[in-house]
Amino acid sequence: MNDASQPTFRPYLRPCRYPSAMSEAAADEAYDAAVVDLLGVLAYGELSAFERLCADAALAPTLDDKAEIAAMACAEFGHFQLLRSRLNELGADSETAMRPFVAPLDAFHASTSPADWLEGLVKAYVGDGIAADFYREISVLLDDRNRALVKEVFSDTGHSVFVVAKVRAAIEDDPRVGGRLALWGRRLMGEALSQAQRVAAERDALAGLLSGASGAGGMDLVELGRMFTRITEQHTKRMSALGLAA
Amino acid sequence: MNDASQPTFRPYLRPCRYPSAMSEAAADEAYDAAVVDLLGVLAYGELSAFERLCADAALAPTLDDKAEIAAMACAEFGHFQLLRSRLNELGADSETAMRPFVAPLDAFHASTSPADWLEGLVKAYVGDGIAADFYREISVLLDDRNRALVKEVFSDTGHSVFVVAKVRAAIEDDPRVGGRLALWGRRLMGEALSQAQRVAAERDALAGLLSGASGAGGMDLVELGRMFTRITEQHTKRMSALGLAA
Repeated sequence: MNDASQPTFRPYLRPCRYPSAMSEAAADEAYDAAVVDLLGVLAYGELSAFERLCADAALAPTLDDKAEIAAMACAEFGHFQLLRSRLNELGADSETAMRPFVAPLDAFHASTSPADWLEGLVKAYVGDGIAADFYREISVLLDDRNRALVKEVFSDTGHSVFVVAKVRAAIEDDPRVGGRLALWGRRLMGEALSQAQRVAAERDALAGLLSGASGAGGMDLVELGRMFTRITEQHTKRMSALGLAA
Repeated sequence: MNDASQPTFRPYLRPCRYPSAMSEAAADEAYDAAVVDLLGVLAYGELSAFERLCADAALAPTLDDKAEIAAMACAEFGHFQLLRSRLNELGADSETAMRPFVAPLDAFHASTSPADWLEGLVKAYVGDGIAADFYREISVLLDDRNRALVKEVFSDTGHSVFVVAKVRAAIEDDPRVGGRLALWGRRLMGEALSQAQRVAAERDALAGLLSGASGAGGMDLVELGRMFTRITEQHTKRMSALGLAA
């Protein structure tokens, strides 16, 4: 099937732009490292989302609300377990794979610690939404199996209906709440972007995946710009679903 | 099938000793109220166990340990969901059914808040063990279906192996830890008994289930005494599995 004049690509890769100086083996290695990095950041993201939702559950005004948030926390933990299993399948140690992302993700959560129940709800919906959009965009650079895993991890678990109803009701009760939560939503977006940049800057393998240097397709600057536009549009949609100005 | 000289019993009841002054309808009502109370205290017990384990997860020394405790928390939440479903099937509002038990169970957790990771592990194993033994003992007074539910809720989810290994390793590292944790285990037992007495004293329906006044079989004082002996024996076995003097 291969024409000798063409480089052979790993079947799951989009047309490859890795530098001609990089051998195929080196490209494979770079790609594998990028996948482990990506699964590592996702796994720790889910584990810390579990913890953060547990803290939110403690702020719940009723036992039903507490149970709803606890269900969201356990759904995140289920995703963590899927990601950890895949890391193990790939021969990676999950603790080692997650370790580089503990500090930046903890910093994100520390800088966006909800002051009350409503801020927690908005963070769960808006913050997770931004993360989900971002990782789904990146997943197009992955092979089928890992792309399917990322899709599953970020599938809507049906909890957004609960959050939207609670936040809209609170704004209806007291419209001033809407102004405060709109500011909060914007801050979440800003912090998420700055943490994402920090992670990409520190992790060569992930940056390589995005740029194509790791042997996968990668995105050029125009594509990156379009990706951020799409993420911003989705964020605006979520804010307006909550009744908030983005 | 019924001999007119015999009272008709609800098929799931052990030979009934409810006072002859109590009509069968009143006995059924008392039994149903006791079941709702029991499922209510169990449901809130599981929901608060979820929260307490979440707090323990934050103290975990490694990410693997954190994940292990998070898995225990989610298992407890799964049990909560089973109990809530049964309450709903019985036409009871789960929030209302749990409400009377919030204060006593929160008081138990406040008086036994672990100072560190190891105390959290011992509480998860020893505290839950006492609760499981107690409720399994009570479940013999229930109809088959509710007894099976209680059994399922308190089935060992395999996490005790993890706790036992961690606690024993810590004592091996530093034998003084064993003395401190042994005191802690005794305090857990004492607080659990005093809270259980408080709950039984305040909830007529539950007390009636135990004494037989609710129309179910009940236990006389000798049986109650034997039950507490069995619970204490099981507690001693768990303490010694951890390498602790009870």
